[in-house]
Parts: sequence; C-alpha cells; structure tokens
Amino acid sequence: MDISGEMLIGGAGTRGSEAPFRGVDPATGDELDPPFGGAGQAEVERACALAWSACDAYRETGIEARARLLESIGDGIAGIGDALIERTMAETGLPRGRIEGERTRTVGQLRLFAEVLREGSFLEARIDPAMPARTPLPRSDLRMRMIAVGPVAVFGASNFPLAFSVAGGDTASALAAGCPVVVKAHPAHPGTSELVGRAVRDAVAASGLPEGVFALLFGAGNELGAALVADPRIKSVGFTGSRRGGVALMRIAAGRPEPIPVHAEMSSINPVLLMPAALAARGGAIAGAFVGSMTLGAGQFCTNPGLVFAVEGPGLDAFREAAAGAVAASPAQTMLTPGMHAAYRHGVERLRAHPRLEIVARGKPARDGAYQGQAHLFTTDAATFAADADLQEEVFGACSVLIRCPDIATMREQVERLEGQLTVTVQMDEADSSSVRALLPTLERKAGRVLVNGFPTGVEVAHAMVHGGPYPATSDGRTTSVGTLAIRRFLRPVCYQDLPAALLPEALRDGNPLGIWRRIDGKLGRD
Amino acid sequence: MDISGEMLIGGAGTRGSEAPFRGVDPATGDELDPPFGGAGQAEVERACALAWSACDAYRETGIEARARLLESIGDGIAGIGDALIERTMAETGLPRGRIEGERTRTVGQLRLFAEVLREGSFLEARIDPAMPARTPLPRSDLRMRMIAVGPVAVFGASNFPLAFSVAGGDTASALAAGCPVVVKAHPAHPGTSELVGRAVRDAVAASGLPEGVFALLFGAGNELGAALVADPRIKSVGFTGSRRGGVALMRIAAGRPEPIPVHAEMSSINPVLLMPAALAARGGAIAGAFVGSMTLGAGQFCTNPGLVFAVEGPGLDAFREAAAGAVAASPAQTMLTPGMHAAYRHGVERLRAHPRLEIVARGKPARDGAYQGQAHLFTTDAATFAADADLQEEVFGACSVLIRCPDIATMREQVERLEGQLTVTVQMDEADSSSVRALLPTLERKAGRVLVNGFPTGVEVAHAMVHGGPYPATSDGRTTSVGTLAIRRFLRPVCYQDLPAALLPEALRDGNPLGIWRRIDGKLGRD
Repeated sequence: MDISGEMLIGGAGTRGSEAPFRGVDPATGDELDPPFGGAGQAEVERACALAWSACDAYRETGIEARARLLESIGDGIAGIGDALIERTMAETGLPRGRIEGERTRTVGQLRLFAEVLREGSFLEARIDPAMPARTPLPRSDLRMRMIAVGPVAVFGASNFPLAFSVAGGDTASALAAGCPVVVKAHPAHPGTSELVGRAVRDAVAASGLPEGVFALLFGAGNELGAALVADPRIKSVGFTGSRRGGVALMRIAAGRPEPIPVHAEMSSINPVLLMPAALAARGGAIAGAFVGSMTLGAGQFCTNPGLVFAVEGPGLDAFREAAAGAVAASPAQTMLTPGMHAAYRHGVERLRAHPRLEIVARGKPARDGAYQGQAHLFTTDAATFAADADLQEEVFGACSVLIRCPDIATMREQVERLEGQLTVTVQMDEADSSSVRALLPTLERKAGRVLVNGFPTGVEVAHAMVHGGPYPATSDGRTTSVGTLAIRRFLRPVCYQDLPAALLPEALRDGNPLGIWRRIDGKLGRD
Repeated sequence: MDISGEMLIGGAGTRGSEAPFRGVDPATGDELDPPFGGAGQAEVERACALAWSACDAYRETGIEARARLLESIGDGIAGIGDALIERTMAETGLPRGRIEGERTRTVGQLRLFAEVLREGSFLEARIDPAMPARTPLPRSDLRMRMIAVGPVAVFGASNFPLAFSVAGGDTASALAAGCPVVVKAHPAHPGTSELVGRAVRDAVAASGLPEGVFALLFGAGNELGAALVADPRIKSVGFTGSRRGGVALMRIAAGRPEPIPVHAEMSSINPVLLMPAALAARGGAIAGAFVGSMTLGAGQFCTNPGLVFAVEGPGLDAFREAAAGAVAASPAQTMLTPGMHAAYRHGVERLRAHPRLEIVARGKPARDGAYQGQAHLFTTDAATFAADADLQEEVFGACSVLIRCPDIATMREQVERLEGQLTVTVQMDEADSSSVRALLPTLERKAGRVLVNGFPTGVEVAHAMVHGGPYPATSDGRTTSVGTLAIRRFLRPVCYQDLPAALLPEALRDGNPLGIWRRIDGKLGRD
C-alpha cells in the first residue's frame, strides 16, 4: 500500500503547511520515504473545527453503531496486512513477532470496547423516580447518564506504534465514549500512523458518521501538540510519553481559560521487591525472569522494571550472580529512535558516573553505528539511594538498579520514599507473607498495579487492569489507560430533572429499551 | 453548649498560633463571642501529619465500621439540638426553618453515604480470573478495586453552614471513601463549625478510629487554605465558593511538585429558557415560580437562576409584568456576611450602571444599616448580552437578568456562548418539544443538570443527582458534589495481579465475602 505523507483532516488527505519531515529507520539511521507534511495552526484549526462540528451528533450515535465503528476500524487495521507490519518494523526497529502481537492487541482493544458499548454499564444510567407525595417537599424525577466530554486530543506513543498510537487505547476508549478524536501522530512512525489513520478514516466514512470524528495530524516538533491542547474545542487529552512532555501538556491544559484534564502516562521505574524467603529459595530463577522482563523490547516499556530492592544475604548473592550472567548474555537491541538511543546512553552514563553505583553486568555491546541499546544492571546500597533523589529518574531502556537493603524495614522506608509508579512487583514465598501484608498499604499508595511473583512488563487488556498510578506515573491516578475502565476518563455525568418522556435519552427511558444495567432508586438491576 | 473557639486537631481542642477572629451576626454586624484561634503553619503541619498517619488504617476500615461512623456523626449533629440551630442562625442570618431543613439534609447525606458503603458498588470490584492455558500467553489473575486517594482538604462553604460545611457533602463522601479529612471552616460561621466539628471528632473517637481521621482548622484569611492545598500529604480538595477562590486553589494544586485534583464548585448563573408556548400559556405563573427561586434564601444558592432567556412576544410581556410585581413585593433579606452583602451591592451597581440594561423591578429596600439584599431584576436584548461577556459574571444574590431574544435561533446562539453551568432550566409546553429537542445537545454540553418546568434551586440528595458541570461551574465537570456519585472523586483504582488469596482485600476474595456487586470477566453480578 502506498504511503502518501498526507495528513487526514475531514476525510481527505492534505499536505501540511509546515516543513515536512521523514521517518527514520533506527536500525540504520537512514531516512525513509515519503516526506510527511507538518501541521501548522491552519491544520489544527480545521481539524478542531471539524471535530467540534461532529461532536453533538457523534456522541448521540447509538451504542450499536459505535460498537460497529470500532470493529470496523479493527477489521481495517487487520486488512492492511503485511504492508503495515513491514512499515512498522522499518520505522521502529521492532521485530516482526512483536509488531504482529501488537496488531492483535490493537484490534482486540477495539473489539473489547465494542463489547463495553453493547453491555452498556459505561452509561451508568441512574433513575430516582419522582415522589410527588413526599413531605415536606415532593421529589422530582431525576435521571442520570454519562455523556462524552467532547473532542479529545490523542498523542501517539513512540514505544507502541499500534497499541498506544493512532488507533490505540486512548483512541479506542475516546471513540467508544462518543468523543471525536484528533490524533497527533508520533513523528517516529509517521508511515505506520498514516496506514492506521486511513483505516480509521475509512471506517468512519463507511459507517456514515461525520468526517470530523477522526483526524490525523503530523508534526516533528512540540508546537503542534501545544496548539492542539490549547485549542478551546479540545476537552480532554490522552498522552503516553516522557515526563517532560506530559508535564508540559499538563501546564498548557491547566493554563487555558477553560482548564481541561490531561491523561498523561509518563514516568515509572516499576520497583521490584525481592523478599528474603523467595530470594533464598529461588534467587537464580527470579534473576532469569527479571532480566527477561528488563531486556524485553530493549527495555522500552512504561512498565520496565528499573529498580530492584532486596535484602542482603546469600539469596541476594545468588540472584546477583544469575542476573549478571543473564545480562551479560543479552544481545544489544535496536532502539525505537536515534533520539531515544541517545537519551538511553546518556542515562546510563549518568549512572556509570555515579561514585557510589557499581556495574553488576553489561549486555553485549552495540553494533558499531547502530542505534542499539546495551543492557545495564547497576547496584548500590539503600543509603546511597536514599541520599540521591536523581536515582529515581527513569532511564528509558534495558537498565535497572539493584538496591541492597540491610533489612525489610529499610526496604520499606525506601519504597515509601518513591514517587508514584505504574506498578510495583513483589517476589515472595509463603514465609514472606506477613512482611508483604505489612508492606501492602504502602504498595497500594505508590502504584496502580501490585503484582506478586510475576514481572510488570505485559499489560493485559482486561476489565480489571489498571495501567495508571499516582503522579508522576500518570497525571491523574484516578484513571487507567489500559482496560475497559479507560472509557470513563472521557465521560461526564448529566442529570435530567423532570424531562418529558419523549425528550429522554434512550438509556434513561422507562422500560429500559437498551436492556442495560441501571440503578433505580439506588438499586442495581436490569429493569 | 459552650463554644470554646478552639480548633480540633488530633482529638483535642487547640488555640491557633495566628491572630484570632470572631463570627459576625449579619443581621446587626455585631461581633459574636468567643474569639476563634487562627491556624498557622504549625497547625496545618500537625493536622496533615495526623491525617497522613491515619490514612492507611482508616482506608482499610471495614465498610460497616465506616457506615456506622457516618451514622454516628449524623446522630451527633442531631444531638446538639437547638444550640446548633441558634448559633447557625446568629452567624448566618438564615431563618430557623431553613437551618432546620439543612440539618435534616446534612444528617440525611451522612446516612445516604452509609447506605452507599453497605451496598458496596463504590468499590467497583472486578475480577478477571487467571487463564493459565491461554495461548500464546497465559493470563494472570487480575483483580481491581477502588481505594481512597488519601487525606482530603475540605473547605466549608459560606452559604450552606451545615450541608456544605464541616460535615457536609464533601466531608461525608470523603470519609465514606476512606479519606481522612482536614476541614478549613468557613470564617463566616466558626461557632457552627466548632459544634459540628466536635460531633465529628466525638464520633471518630467513639468508633475507635485514629484521631487523624478528622481535623478542623480556623482561619480568617486565604493563607490557611493555600497552605493546606500545598501540603504534600493532602491528595485531593473539596471546595464550594467563589470563582476567584476556586481558581486560586486550582493553581496551587496544579503547581505542586505532585499536582492533585481540586473539586471546586465555583460559579454558575443557571440560565432559564422560557419557550414560546409555555410563555404564552402561563407566563404569569412561571414568573411567580421564577421569582420564588430567584429570591429564595436571599438568592444565595449556587443554583440561583441569574439569567433568563425568552422570545419576545405577548407571553413575555405577561411574564415580565408578573415578575416585576413579584420582585417588587419581595422583602429584603439578610445576607450571609457583610462582605457578601457588599459584593452583591457592587454587582448590582455594575448592572445598574450598564447603559443598555434596564431595571424591570426592585424588591423592597433594605433596612437601614442592615446587611440585607434587595432583589433586582434587569432586562436587556440579546445583542447587548452577546456583546458583553461581563454579563455572564455571577452576581451572588437575588439578582437576575432577562434577555429578550427575537427568536429561538437567537436564544440558542446565546446559550451556545455561555460558560459552563451547574444547571440549565427549560420552561416548555408540548408545542415547544421540537425546539427543545434541538436545543438539548447544547444544554447537555453546557450544564451538569437539565431541568424541565421546575427551577434550579433545591438540589435533591439522590443517586441520580449531578451538582457539577463544565468549567467554571466546577473545576472538573466529570464529578458531582451532591448525590451518591460524589464518593467517586475521592477514589482511585488499584489492580492486584496474582496476589495470594490470603493477601487479597476482602472485596476481591473468592466467594465474595462482602456480598457486593462485582464484575467477573466483565459480567456484573453478585457471585
């Protein structure tokens, strides 16, 4: 399939008014064809105007129609076939198996949100019937449902060119909620973005929905994203990326005449706690699995385990030895972009230069001239970690720091000092139970997901998943960007008081025509 | 009951380290005894430290224990008896009937949240069971529940000395959610605050809960609130008050090293739309009910109807004439504070000085020297309203502006120009249905509650209520400050992956020991 380099605004492709840029093959550093037009203020204006004009109609599209749109987008993405896989591989350096898996995940996410729509609980329909005879005052008829917040700006993530990008989780949940979406493609994979964007655009058109439901903008710098978040027609933002980028968007959003929420998933070092009994019983096995998680995908996951706490002792020595071996055997891997490769090297250099950190092991060296990340495992003691807040800074890539603690109390103190995290993982055995029970309240406060005897990479798209967590893991720990609960971030409640039956939205009509779960006078049921 | 003038930090009363202040009887302007100590940094520090230390234990208190705490607080408030009513009347100038009704509402809110706790849906328990045989990858056991966000700062509102104050809606929902609460009492009713605060403190103590679960601070200036919102141990804020105050707190919260959500309910002029058929059929009757809503409680409600849109014609003339009569007959009423009285007079003067506004009617004049608000109804045309954004500024009190529109299209344009609102009201008859249907998407976008043939004052505490709305009605239109959904603002989701059964929170254990609604593999039920 040809890639045109055109943005998608209002159904038609368009060249941008700003300087063009190209994708880069990170395996070679070579620029890829074609050039992509850059969006300027004119394109932001048009995309937002169309999204705004589509807003009222799209949010009242029936839930079946929206479910079909999502499925149709999924079919369209699957239908691009190998052209998508190959372009994504070329733009990201990620291996075929990973990209194919990510495509499956992306299509699966869209289908899961179609199920969420049909199930209907996301509407949170509530009815408190009128009580005309109540004293001293009668009660009005009150009915509540959730409606879409309005157009959403979605920022494609560099590290998931499909699943967190143009038709990724944020787009799926926003479209499911009834929000038009304006995507800013990540400049690291513009061709991938165009291919997926066309699948979305075509599905919108084939569904007979307003063309403003979806737009795709390209831009290599920060201006485009800033302009998008500042636009008064944008009512919410979905972002996955760096802490600096996320915080910049939060500031813009908070400084608008009408502040809006930003859902930014930004920064997490995903601590792993190795409890003494587990370490003593299977330190070597834990090390193997840990290094597998740490080096997976060149460590370029939001949930990459960048910090390990363990109590000193023979178990830790076994872990350290086995981890050193596994790291040393791990091949260098092409990173997503030359820029991320440079940032990783810089982050590793910072740790190497730290006077109180020592290297446990390094992975196989990078091929000359390639943008490959070499795995690094460092270690230090708890006192050093406690004394240096910079050691909490994320190094995005296959790099981790093992913190040796004299005892569990010290480990707990260190965890208490951590910033908010997406995940925290505990490796434990039966004999560690009471220690872990005592730690749990701290772990819950620190993270959106608490794992036992697994590793944090691999985020299941499910109903009970939370891919979120206290700041700075995300801008707002009350939501998730993965899983079905994600739809809620793009919804707001509206109450209808004494509306005539003919004017009520379908979800709130007597007789429950949608057959959904509703709360009548506080009682949940399918009346 | 004696009023000591002491704050409540950690169970014991305490004098503040800042200059004391006194309540004022707004009927006379006289200062009331006793003086109240003002909280400084030392008191903020102690209150927040205690709240933080109570946080983990309190949020894991069983739902039955928390329900009983709320009921016990309600009993305690009821048990203060007439001393509370009299002190509140003296500090607010509100009449006995209103205060007694507000007490009933306050106790009712606490009891309603006790029901919400026992019902258990607020926990949003979700379980996705493990699928060890799934290919290509097994699925882990995933379980999600909501947990409390942490200590909450609650700002008492001036206009609801009981229902939106020390033990008002925000405190009830935060305590229900499992959050310790630090209240900044509104300086307009410190004695009322102390009496209610003691009831809360005593209930916490009698329930055997940590003393840090509740604190009450006094302060006459803005420094106390600013220090509270800036404290790193405070994780959320509930505020009802002025736009300037709310926006100031939003800025502080957004500028923290760890930004936190602010739930500020700030500013709304609650437009009322008079549709032509309704106006023609019953313009006079609508006018009477409208003026009743506009002058209720001296107009000191967040939902006071400060703006009326109507299509010009004979129906409007009848409405205007009847409204003029009703306004002229309405007595001046004591306002909540001398400061609010001055602000109201200033707001009315601003409208009177407007060259294109005319006065429809004024209420009976204020008694000399009393802080009484005189009702005012103004009118102008749509073009004037459209040309002057200042006319959207809330004048807090019994003041409203009638906007004459040449047709419904103009009315709609004017509504489209409005900022976010708590409510929007439509007075309509059958023949107005198609016009209202066309307006509805705009009304939903503008407000948290859409009313037909009622008036917006009177906010039912119910499951389907939304007392919220787009900015600047509130800081975040995705929540409500009245009704059972309010608990959600103080909760965040946590996912537990492969936790051993013995470590799981009760809400997520196999066999559903709490007997609550849970979502298993996406299916809602009471397994």
